[in-house]
Amino acid sequence: MKNNHQDTLKLRRVAIDTYKENVAYLHRNCAIYRTEGFQALSKVEITTVNGDPEHQHRVLAVLNVVDDENITQCNELGLSEQAFTQLDVKEGHCIRIAHAEPPASLSAVHRKIAGERLELDDFRGIARDIAENRYSKTEMAAFLVASSQSGLEREEVLYMTRAMVECGDRLSWGEPLVADKHCIGGIPGNRTSMLIVPIIAAHGMLIPKTSSRAITSPAGTADTMALLAKVQLPPKQLREIIRCQRGCLAWGGAARLAPVDDILISVERPLSLDSQGQMVASILAKKLAAGSTHLLIDIPMGPTAKVRHMGEALQLRKLFEFVGDRLGLHIEVVISNGRQPVGRGVGPVLELRDVMQVLNNDPEAPADLRQKSLWLAGRVLEFDPDVRGGQGYAIARDILDSGRALSKMRDIIEAQGRVTKTTEVGKLKHVIKAPAKGFVSAIDNLQIARIARLAGAPMDKGAGVDLLKKLGDPVKKGEPLYFIHADFPSDFRFAQESATKESGFQISKSLPSGSIGPEF
Amino acid sequence: MKNNHQDTLKLRRVAIDTYKENVAYLHRNCAIYRTEGFQALSKVEITTVNGDPEHQHRVLAVLNVVDDENITQCNELGLSEQAFTQLDVKEGHCIRIAHAEPPASLSAVHRKIAGERLELDDFRGIARDIAENRYSKTEMAAFLVASSQSGLEREEVLYMTRAMVECGDRLSWGEPLVADKHCIGGIPGNRTSMLIVPIIAAHGMLIPKTSSRAITSPAGTADTMALLAKVQLPPKQLREIIRCQRGCLAWGGAARLAPVDDILISVERPLSLDSQGQMVASILAKKLAAGSTHLLIDIPMGPTAKVRHMGEALQLRKLFEFVGDRLGLHIEVVISNGRQPVGRGVGPVLELRDVMQVLNNDPEAPADLRQKSLWLAGRVLEFDPDVRGGQGYAIARDILDSGRALSKMRDIIEAQGRVTKTTEVGKLKHVIKAPAKGFVSAIDNLQIARIARLAGAPMDKGAGVDLLKKLGDPVKKGEPLYFIHADFPSDFRFAQESATKESGFQISKSLPSGSIGPEF
Repeated sequence: MKNNHQDTLKLRRVAIDTYKENVAYLHRNCAIYRTEGFQALSKVEITTVNGDPEHQHRVLAVLNVVDDENITQCNELGLSEQAFTQLDVKEGHCIRIAHAEPPASLSAVHRKIAGERLELDDFRGIARDIAENRYSKTEMAAFLVASSQSGLEREEVLYMTRAMVECGDRLSWGEPLVADKHCIGGIPGNRTSMLIVPIIAAHGMLIPKTSSRAITSPAGTADTMALLAKVQLPPKQLREIIRCQRGCLAWGGAARLAPVDDILISVERPLSLDSQGQMVASILAKKLAAGSTHLLIDIPMGPTAKVRHMGEALQLRKLFEFVGDRLGLHIEVVISNGRQPVGRGVGPVLELRDVMQVLNNDPEAPADLRQKSLWLAGRVLEFDPDVRGGQGYAIARDILDSGRALSKMRDIIEAQGRVTKTTEVGKLKHVIKAPAKGFVSAIDNLQIARIARLAGAPMDKGAGVDLLKKLGDPVKKGEPLYFIHADFPSDFRFAQESATKESGFQISKSLPSGSIGPEF
Repeated sequence: MKNNHQDTLKLRRVAIDTYKENVAYLHRNCAIYRTEGFQALSKVEITTVNGDPEHQHRVLAVLNVVDDENITQCNELGLSEQAFTQLDVKEGHCIRIAHAEPPASLSAVHRKIAGERLELDDFRGIARDIAENRYSKTEMAAFLVASSQSGLEREEVLYMTRAMVECGDRLSWGEPLVADKHCIGGIPGNRTSMLIVPIIAAHGMLIPKTSSRAITSPAGTADTMALLAKVQLPPKQLREIIRCQRGCLAWGGAARLAPVDDILISVERPLSLDSQGQMVASILAKKLAAGSTHLLIDIPMGPTAKVRHMGEALQLRKLFEFVGDRLGLHIEVVISNGRQPVGRGVGPVLELRDVMQVLNNDPEAPADLRQKSLWLAGRVLEFDPDVRGGQGYAIARDILDSGRALSKMRDIIEAQGRVTKTTEVGKLKHVIKAPAKGFVSAIDNLQIARIARLAGAPMDKGAGVDLLKKLGDPVKKGEPLYFIHADFPSDFRFAQESATKESGFQISKSLPSGSIGPEF
């Protein structure tokens, strides 16, 4: 920084939420802006001015140039909400601003773009720089696309996982068996966690499951659970609940577990990047940081699932096993039937109805959701050395049928904080009917999810799709296949239009034998 | 958009310059924000509310959430400067906001990431969506990295060039011969355009050269010319000057020529992405849009130049020729000596001194800058059917020696608008000395450029490096190799530190024969 002119600025908090991107605001007439030759969108480093350089706070941000003194005055530097919180000093504090150097690890990204194989220290450098917010979103996109295009070798996935775990907190439960389950996603209505967690916790096994909100799907476990209980809890309280209840159904974003993963996902999702390597590293880093010792992975496979062929499923399974083995995480992978949505409802309220029917042992409960949940819960229970191989399913069924799962669910809800307001299914209702007599021979997961999202899910909790027919069911011409629910007329119209163009259901005259695939 | 609640907002201009990224500001308590479920950094489409849907204005932007009514009130939507200008309606206008669909052409980007070869229509879709600001910066980064990693086939480079030209204005000069020259860059001090343009224009040949500002180099032609004349001119005035003077030395950014290129460069440069395909498409699209018919390309080659081997240079030459031939642009490519900086000065004021010495036929003028400029100008002159092959150099030399080039330069300066203020070389001066007796056997272009930039170039016009020795020169121990000039003590110190660690000069005991390469 220059010493021969006024070179410090006063810190100001600018009440703009720029999500995971730090933004600094500098007035166009600020003397420093002019002499330093900054330009909008250049990356700057902001440092606090203290006596002791050891205790300087610093933050990196992208620069926006301001022409309004109400936002930032000439002698001020404004920081967006998150950047202000990260710098962690009070408004009015003296700060300096300088051009930020590109992150040192960017050279490794360039080597990856050129097709090279990276080493553990490369991934450590990249993860550290990302955790310290040294990467811009475009730099992260470059890393993700480069890793996705030429792919990561399995050693690289291992390095990436290890580097992500090292860059955050790591929980320790002081118990030899800490279980978890994770589904790679892509199947609407697949709310098995809300059944598995109460069953496992009721058995007494520790299952500190944290869930994500829906980003590209019509509902996530956290969105659905939010209808019953508070899901956004301070990390300390969440740990208390888990210790006491042996499980939870909360949102995992508040803890600093593998924070690099959250940052990368904020770039990866909008780009719809989907590489096996990044997915495995992302899932396993989170679970390792959460202190899991045993993990069940569910890979649904089907023509409209994320994984479409057995070869792909096996490749992914081996990648999970390779990385898990080397990082001391016991992993079992199941490949499930991903040919159609699970349960009937798609959207938070509708999915909650299905889950509660199963917990209540309601005869109307969707059999597939019940069966799949028991099957997966059984596999998790068999992590317990005291459970005999093959007995897990029966134990899980007993816990569910006896009402102990429901009772555990109630305890978890009370512990997290019950939500008293009930949310109804969307008032606007439209029926989609079978165009001909025959059998349901295919259901398109992607199209059903799209219709539910157009109808307003997951933001409109009551919006979504309610399936009346599933694969193999016989239908008459004009018989209802599913309902669309919505709260707002325009969403309703968009969803209807999409469903009219492409219902997502295929009706065939006869049902080819074996076309339905395995039971779950 | 929803019809059952208040769904329009009042447009407000927010005086924040977010450069090439459109930003929309919505208050956190805005009813639409809450019901639509937007989140910070999601992409939104803003549409004006008019009777006539044919005349709706629309713009895409990234959303920032505001908690300060001074910036945006609950019933308002704020737009950053550029987004406001693009929407092109007055403050207070009623607008609607909706989630923006991902650009349709993004599927082609995903195919490119998967390694597929794209077709002309794919590139057209991508270019159109980028021109309409439908791409986020991360989406552009994904496209650029994908094109860089698996590379573009030469047909794809052709498609990309054509698509970029189609997405903007295209100038027509109504003359059969419109010349231009372009250097791919990477060599400090290489200000030949400021000599070639006056020579060619003095000959009467049309050379509508527009130049860029330095982004990663210590000086660009536009930065250097800005010391003499206005370089930022309205497109119409610029065209008048070119018609009248037969040439210009101005900044090209104001015209809408291949605007996609400018947008991509704003992502490409900070990422230091450097792919042959994107470079060729970028250069040729700009020249075609500017109405050029004949183009001379200079590829400097050397161990610290952009192109390091003859194989690479030839590959690049053939790519330029392939695309040029198919788009009706006559291209000649020269491969020049890129083993060291051209001239003595590196940095705007120092480079201008060199240029003026050459124009003034000063015996002190750097011979290499003069020779290289005459050689290139000669090649351009030979585009003229009336100039006999091999006579170009002699004609160029005659124009320079007779003072006609200087006189044309003065005319161009007057036409663009003379700058009266003179800028001096940086007051702070440090000398770097030879560590031993011997010969200068290598000069590192990258390190010299880095030192000049650390010293403050190009923003501090007077900052930079002044070379006293060049390749092959004998030196005594302790003899000065170059000066560092700066205006600000901290910049001065950074540049000194870097030069002390690594001077960029290699001194050898003897000079291996042939190590200097071709003359220019």
